[in-house]
Amino acid sequence: MITSTSNPKVKQIVQWQTKAKQRRQDDIFLAEGLKMFEEAPPELIREVYLTQFLLQHLESRGETYDKPHNIEEKLRDIGYETVTEEVFSRMSDTRTPQGILTVLRRPVYGLKQLLQGDRPLLVLLEDIQDPGNLGTILRTGEGAGITGVIMTPQTVDIYNPKTIRATMGSVYRVPFLYVDDMAATIAALREKGIHVYAAHLQGQAYYDSFSFREGTAFLIGNEGNGLRRETAELADSYLKIPMEGQVESLNAAIAASLLVYEAHRQRNN
Amino acid sequence: MITSTSNPKVKQIVQWQTKAKQRRQDDIFLAEGLKMFEEAPPELIREVYLTQFLLQHLESRGETYDKPHNIEEKLRDIGYETVTEEVFSRMSDTRTPQGILTVLRRPVYGLKQLLQGDRPLLVLLEDIQDPGNLGTILRTGEGAGITGVIMTPQTVDIYNPKTIRATMGSVYRVPFLYVDDMAATIAALREKGIHVYAAHLQGQAYYDSFSFREGTAFLIGNEGNGLRRETAELADSYLKIPMEGQVESLNAAIAASLLVYEAHRQRNN
Repeated sequence: MITSTSNPKVKQIVQWQTKAKQRRQDDIFLAEGLKMFEEAPPELIREVYLTQFLLQHLESRGETYDKPHNIEEKLRDIGYETVTEEVFSRMSDTRTPQGILTVLRRPVYGLKQLLQGDRPLLVLLEDIQDPGNLGTILRTGEGAGITGVIMTPQTVDIYNPKTIRATMGSVYRVPFLYVDDMAATIAALREKGIHVYAAHLQGQAYYDSFSFREGTAFLIGNEGNGLRRETAELADSYLKIPMEGQVESLNAAIAASLLVYEAHRQRNN
Repeated sequence: MITSTSNPKVKQIVQWQTKAKQRRQDDIFLAEGLKMFEEAPPELIREVYLTQFLLQHLESRGETYDKPHNIEEKLRDIGYETVTEEVFSRMSDTRTPQGILTVLRRPVYGLKQLLQGDRPLLVLLEDIQDPGNLGTILRTGEGAGITGVIMTPQTVDIYNPKTIRATMGSVYRVPFLYVDDMAATIAALREKGIHVYAAHLQGQAYYDSFSFREGTAFLIGNEGNGLRRETAELADSYLKIPMEGQVESLNAAIAASLLVYEAHRQRNN
């Protein structure tokens, strides 16, 4: 059991929690909470830390409740290290830590994986800044059956602890890519027969007047500024979401969610 | 110009920023930013504070750009007090303050206002905890044309600065009510012919299989726990949102947004 916050492993975790560059250099990311451990692909897990308190809690509930039993088994299979409450709250990024933190290797996706199936459904993000928005887009995207998320380099770090948390596990399952050249990527999508729609205030038609039954990609712009003009011009069509009252725009995660769920609705009707 | 952070007015603002109870006792709320000042109903405004820097900026742009001109006029009509940058950053709830803060009296709505029109569209919130979620629900709700939001007392404070910010001005326009007895309120809605739908994982049918063309209310539960069983039982129908992959639930604001926009879609087709 690790009992000191000056333990090198603890210091390493704190650095990973706070420094995106260090996470990137070491090719890892962190995921807190039981659900995030439970759903973590075993082949990606490198280290697991949990409090003695949580471990005892899991052991005492093991016989009566299904999930902790599976969690215990997974913990035994993978190996873990226990830490004191004090050490854990130092390691944790949250105010009310659940007491388990998983260190994972980063998955690597190719464009091919994002284009799976005969009618891919993609979300293309330009410079989204809010980690919660990005995480929510992955979560809702998985729910709507998207095949991937493609992001500009200026988009917030997908491995930001707040993003990871907001994905509620979808970060393990939705393929994603950062691309240096969104224009080239859009050209590649178009060659594959994927229609690219820009969510844009100057859209000519409402989103529910298009058919998203074939290969579809939705371009979503930055929270404050929307899509850059040169990016919007790469789209095949502009679409808009109707807005009553004095609303001038919707939150980026909300806009993305309405679009992917409209595609889901159409594809299942 | 206020130049000292120990000025009683500054201390008062700081207290209002941080203490929900004090805001409630004094019947006020705070709204930061130019957009929030611009859209604020004049009859609710009690005080306005802005930095000398912002004031000069507005004056210098006045002739060339429409909005600052209107803002200047509104400032003159209502009256304001200038403060130093240092004082403003003390007053502000944000890390990058825009330099203008409005103190407003709280509006008072009755159920009647929320039931306006011949087919009200309401969102009923049980114990939503995240201020950003609540603000986003108001913003998206206005966009979808809802007639009001009804909340349980345990729902987060709608006058929380984070909520106000996330509404992007919709808090001025969407009527809302906290009710002590949600059961009694639902009974009153039903008497008015409003159909109450619970967004529920045990829903029997998907949300897009219902008609929301007549009076409609959507019951949305707490982020972590969903709707309490006794609350869900008050609904006329359960509906569910389809979820692919391993997604077990959607973010509360996302779920609410999908529902109100489905109602909007149906009502406009």
